[in-house]
Amino acid sequence: MASQYELSRIMRPDDANIVGNVHGGTILKMIEEAGCIIGTRHCNTQSGDRCLAALARVERTDFLHPMFIGEVAHVSAEITYTSKHSVEVQVNVLAENIVTGAKKVTNKATLWYVPISLQNVDKIIEVPPIEYSSPEREEAGKKRYEAQKLERLEDKVRNGEIIMSVSLPEPFTVVCSQSSLIHLVGPSDCTLHGFVHGGVTMKLMDEVAGIVAARHCKTNIVTASVDAINFHRKIKKGCVITVSGRMTFTSNKSMEIEVFVDADPLVEAEKGKYRAVTAFFTYISLDKENKPLPVPPLKLEGEEEQKRFEEGKARYLQNKAKRLADKERQQ
Amino acid sequence: MASQYELSRIMRPDDANIVGNVHGGTILKMIEEAGCIIGTRHCNTQSGDRCLAALARVERTDFLHPMFIGEVAHVSAEITYTSKHSVEVQVNVLAENIVTGAKKVTNKATLWYVPISLQNVDKIIEVPPIEYSSPEREEAGKKRYEAQKLERLEDKVRNGEIIMSVSLPEPFTVVCSQSSLIHLVGPSDCTLHGFVHGGVTMKLMDEVAGIVAARHCKTNIVTASVDAINFHRKIKKGCVITVSGRMTFTSNKSMEIEVFVDADPLVEAEKGKYRAVTAFFTYISLDKENKPLPVPPLKLEGEEEQKRFEEGKARYLQNKAKRLADKERQQ
Amino acid sequence: MASQYELSRIMRPDDANIVGNVHGGTILKMIEEAGCIIGTRHCNTQSGDRCLAALARVERTDFLHPMFIGEVAHVSAEITYTSKHSVEVQVNVLAENIVTGAKKVTNKATLWYVPISLQNVDKIIEVPPIEYSSPEREEAGKKRYEAQKLERLEDKVRNGEIIMSVSLPEPFTVVCSQSSLIHLVGPSDCTLHGFVHGGVTMKLMDEVAGIVAARHCKTNIVTASVDAINFHRKIKKGCVITVSGRMTFTSNKSMEIEVFVDADPLVEAEKGKYRAVTAFFTYISLDKENKPLPVPPLKLEGEEEQKRFEEGKARYLQNKAKRLADKERQQ
Repeated sequence: MASQYELSRIMRPDDANIVGNVHGGTILKMIEEAGCIIGTRHCNTQSGDRCLAALARVERTDFLHPMFIGEVAHVSAEITYTSKHSVEVQVNVLAENIVTGAKKVTNKATLWYVPISLQNVDKIIEVPPIEYSSPEREEAGKKRYEAQKLERLEDKVRNGEIIMSVSLPEPFTVVCSQSSLIHLVGPSDCTLHGFVHGGVTMKLMDEVAGIVAARHCKTNIVTASVDAINFHRKIKKGCVITVSGRMTFTSNKSMEIEVFVDADPLVEAEKGKYRAVTAFFTYISLDKENKPLPVPPLKLEGEEEQKRFEEGKARYLQNKAKRLADKERQQ
Repeated sequence: MASQYELSRIMRPDDANIVGNVHGGTILKMIEEAGCIIGTRHCNTQSGDRCLAALARVERTDFLHPMFIGEVAHVSAEITYTSKHSVEVQVNVLAENIVTGAKKVTNKATLWYVPISLQNVDKIIEVPPIEYSSPEREEAGKKRYEAQKLERLEDKVRNGEIIMSVSLPEPFTVVCSQSSLIHLVGPSDCTLHGFVHGGVTMKLMDEVAGIVAARHCKTNIVTASVDAINFHRKIKKGCVITVSGRMTFTSNKSMEIEVFVDADPLVEAEKGKYRAVTAFFTYISLDKENKPLPVPPLKLEGEEEQKRFEEGKARYLQNKAKRLADKERQQ
Repeated sequence: MASQYELSRIMRPDDANIVGNVHGGTILKMIEEAGCIIGTRHCNTQSGDRCLAALARVERTDFLHPMFIGEVAHVSAEITYTSKHSVEVQVNVLAENIVTGAKKVTNKATLWYVPISLQNVDKIIEVPPIEYSSPEREEAGKKRYEAQKLERLEDKVRNGEIIMSVSLPEPFTVVCSQSSLIHLVGPSDCTLHGFVHGGVTMKLMDEVAGIVAARHCKTNIVTASVDAINFHRKIKKGCVITVSGRMTFTSNKSMEIEVFVDADPLVEAEKGKYRAVTAFFTYISLDKENKPLPVPPLKLEGEEEQKRFEEGKARYLQNKAKRLADKERQQ
């Protein structure tokens, strides 16, 4: 039947936390993939514009039982209602232990999709109607449709009010581009011993530095260099890492970003948060032909920022002198 | 020769930014992987404790040329010096365009590793010496070793001083557990049309909510439910997503976390940041037999938090009543 | 029915090359995941030791059509024969374009699994028999079983010798395109038992073969087929895998690449490096309309290469004859 779809896959260490419970987020992602596939497939069963089903709403979803690494998740989706412009998909998730044969329902979810034209992504196209097994089913679907429509509307109004009152920082200041991310250390981030690979930490540091640089100059940016990095303290599996970056210095063609890595051992809370690594990344801004672009100068606020800028400038001049000396020696 | 090693792999869309430049972080990660492999292999060529090479320091690294999707990165590593307790690895990275045949050196890096015993991760074992092609080489290596040792020491002292002056928030407050992450939308997060899959957004939301919950109760936590989520605005490829979570309510056995998703179109900055999604996640805390544990009550500060707590409580009671009604209807 | 299983997922950018063709390796990995799930499930339908189905052999597999990013791959697996200690699984792969609704069969594969006890990974347990729809089916299965058993034995004997020595390359020679990559086995590459999934190994083999092919003909290349692969030895978590490929034969429109997988247990260095798998991949070169292009002939150097070329030619002619015979039989 065109209006049914099943997806399944085995749960791997990266899908779960360190005690083996599959993350709710992994399950939600599979649910939405199934919904998107069945919705897109259905809305393209007619002639006219080709389209893509875009997620508009997920109803309240309960996680009835934990799922574990090694189990197979079966995600089955069915279209249960269609209005003129939206599709209701119901999705069930079943966890199967292929060794013991035990099965249990872990989730039942309801998603609403809206078909967006591929020619014009701002256009919503019409949904081909489905057939219902009984008039009661259609009627019940219509009720669910009306109820969610109302809630979406209310939510839109409510959201309109509380819209981000974040005081917008002035462009090109340190505050304006500073960024941080948290990352829950997963199995693939670690050595066999349960310590984070230095390379994983460096990749996250570069990611944050890149976002700071892009926020500052709004162009395509690339890493030009990384200053020496010392790894004083190991980071253990199960930690949450906070990686923060702030711009310290700009020259005509480059930006220096200071990056901090703090580790928080969450469960072993008595150990407390500690600074694991710090480093300076230098970025440059490129145009479409990969040629360097000028960088907007950093606007400094306060003595601290001024001091850090001067230190960055010293590092910049020192590296420049070193590069020149290396060049001369080679000639 | 045991002390040489080469790793290579093709660069994929997820390794790069939207214009196709491979992230510096991807390259740093490969460099460190090669260093870790050659270092671990070398330190296990003797009898005695089995060990793992842990990264202690990376020297300043320049990115000489951009690398692109579809190119093959060749990372070759060589052990160039060994002291009693550390190993110096030099790594070269070459980008090869397998279609045109063009090759260019993109990086030269120097990494220092320390072998950690697998029996006791706090014990550093001795490094088997390498043979040098000339006494000059050994002498030069020794100089590099002394220089970096000094810098590491200085850095340790400096870091000890400036250690996180972050004022520690009081436990069990909203501020104490609140968390946020930024995520640069990559190709695999998106549909063919360049919009973020709803499932990807939900997975990030669950990740942040989980970290908030774990920070609050320091135990193994799992998602119990997600309230209805509305997706009012699409998120486009190349955006930076900020996902923030804060605890709003605790009952005896559950925690409610409010999660916000803000999208920042970086390059098309005129569009400005906007709130894309908000939702409430409910988490429970589990013991080692996967049985629910009591949750420490949330400490409220100020009227705003009190108001949000009451709203959370109303949602909690409403859901509880609904579950009971559903149960009765089924009997 | 317990002996059927279907897996499906949408193809993402990282599953494909830069022109959007899904890698043969991605498909091989999904095929093996389906086979492993159905095999493990079946072998646990009896009382006694719990077990895991370990891949022992994959029969020659053809790639009938290219698959593209955005398409949904449907992988369905069925158990078609059981001997005392092994399970034959047949897997079909279908590519569905959910926008146009077009579907095409892209692969038909046959895999052999052996159930390994979870209590003792060196013990092979007995396989519960399946029921056959007719005695003819059982008889045909038995013939396939005997044939592959013989081939596995022969292959075990043949495997030994060789490894490559690199010097500077003349275009279109074997040395010019030969390639190798190294991969540190991570948690998500492994089963719950800490052994590498056969599918992960095949994906890496296809990646190397693809690089060899692209280096040789500098065009868009796709996997056309894989010869039977035998998995003689398991690979453990924490190993470093070296995957090397070299071209052995070219016809007008195809290239044959031999791929070796060597496992190096790093920490348990006394165990030494060993050859885990070898296989032959056939690639074709495509133009922008996905039509086959002529392949530059391989320049042979030395008797060894000449001999391998002749052997490759024999395999090529044999497969061609077999395809013709199959076609005639179907008419």
